[in-house]
Amino acid sequence: MTAPMLTEIDHVAIAVQDLESAIAYYADTFGALVAHRERIDSDGVEEALLQVADSYIQLLTPIRPDSPVAKYLEKKGEGIHHVGYRVEDCAAALQSVKDHGGEVIDQAPRPGSRGTTVAFVHPKAAFGTLIELVQE
Amino acid sequence: MTAPMLTEIDHVAIAVQDLESAIAYYADTFGALVAHRERIDSDGVEEALLQVADSYIQLLTPIRPDSPVAKYLEKKGEGIHHVGYRVEDCAAALQSVKDHGGEVIDQAPRPGSRGTTVAFVHPKAAFGTLIELVQE
Repeated sequence: MTAPMLTEIDHVAIAVQDLESAIAYYADTFGALVAHRERIDSDGVEEALLQVADSYIQLLTPIRPDSPVAKYLEKKGEGIHHVGYRVEDCAAALQSVKDHGGEVIDQAPRPGSRGTTVAFVHPKAAFGTLIELVQE
Repeated sequence: MTAPMLTEIDHVAIAVQDLESAIAYYADTFGALVAHRERIDSDGVEEALLQVADSYIQLLTPIRPDSPVAKYLEKKGEGIHHVGYRVEDCAAALQSVKDHGGEVIDQAPRPGSRGTTVAFVHPKAAFGTLIELVQE
C-alpha cells in the first residue's frame, strides 16, 4: 500500500489569452478574487491565483510566443491546462511516479511560483492529465 | 462587488477509458483511495471519487456510446474534463452566471451524484472551461 501523498488540490490551472478579462470574469460572476500574481520568466507565463478555500484557481497566460502555454493555446485553445496537487515531499512523490512506471517531465523538483517546489508528471502515463506536484 | 460564492474546489473530473486502471494508478502512485463510486444513468457515466482533503479527484468513464463523456473521449482523448466548484446555493450561483453574460448548459439546478444539486456552465463564455456548480 502506498501512503497517501496528495494533501490538497493545490490548484486548477486554466490557460487564457487575456488574463485581465479572465480575472474580471471570476470576480464578477463568482466573487473569486486574486490572492497572488506573479510572472514566472523561466516558464514564460504570468499567473493570477484566485483563492478558493485552501486551493487556487490559477489563471495562466503566456508572456512570450515560445512558452509551453502559448503553444497549448495555439493547439487546443483556452481551457483547463493542468491540475496541481499539494504534497508534503515533492521529491518523494516524484520518485513514486518513477517507481510506478510513470513518465516525468521534471527529473527533479525545481522552484515554482510563490516560493514552492514543484515537478510536473507527463500526461502520457497519467490518463492524459498533466499533473503538477506542489510542495509549499 | 459580487459576494464570494466558491467555497471549495469540489472536484477535478478526469475522463478515462478504463476506470479500474485509473483507480489503480492513483492508488499505487499517490495512495489516493476511492471514497465513493456511483453509476449516473442520466449522464451515462460511472464515477469514482478519490478523496483529497475536502475535495475529490473524479474519475469518469462512459457506460454507453451516446454519453457526452464517450463523445469527449472520442474527440479529445483522456484528460481533464471539467472542474466542479462547491457553492452554498447552486440556483443563486447559476443565476449569477446568467446575470453576468455567461452561457449555461443547465437552465436550472438538477440532481448530481452523491445526493448533490448541480448545474453546468458552458465553456464558451468561461474561457474554455466546463464548470460544474455543486451544492451538497
